[in-house]
Amino acid sequence: MRQPIRHAALFRLKHAPDSPEEASFLAALSGLAAIPGVEGFEIAREVSPKNPFAFAVSMRFADQAAYDAYNSHPAHVAFVQGRWLPEVAEFMEHDTVALG
Amino acid sequence: MRQPIRHAALFRLKHAPDSPEEASFLAALSGLAAIPGVEGFEIAREVSPKNPFAFAVSMRFADQAAYDAYNSHPAHVAFVQGRWLPEVAEFMEHDTVALG
Repeated sequence: MRQPIRHAALFRLKHAPDSPEEASFLAALSGLAAIPGVEGFEIAREVSPKNPFAFAVSMRFADQAAYDAYNSHPAHVAFVQGRWLPEVAEFMEHDTVALG
Repeated sequence: MRQPIRHAALFRLKHAPDSPEEASFLAALSGLAAIPGVEGFEIAREVSPKNPFAFAVSMRFADQAAYDAYNSHPAHVAFVQGRWLPEVAEFMEHDTVALG
């Protein structure tokens, strides 16, 4: 299926809000935008009390092959192991394809 | 704070997948795009097994005032009461403002 896929992860950190550790994590996260195939990269702050998350990161891939290449890219793997898993307290991913 | 707000709701329906009831719900949902202040309206299908939801609807508002006007618009209120609450099995909303 060659349809653009929107990948998003809602998350909250173990760090205190507005801490240097939070800023460091967000800066490292923003580096993922440079991985080939990543389009429309955005980090956003949750502003509603409707869920347990504090931030969202989202991006688009042209198709599943581009998404797979991102997932296995060494820079992504290193970020997940070195920063995401140790520093993220809770997260939920969602991947969507636009209808119609 | 005059910053664009992205409003999204992840949801799954009580209806069977690909049923006429599902199609009817999605058609009614798409009507929300006509409410003043709604920008970038999109309905998307969840394609990962990473969460319990089947669809996502998302839209942008120029600011909180536009979002508030949408929330209280009669067409939105009627949709929530007449379709969303009776037909949605589970949902999670999130509202975000882009960083930086």
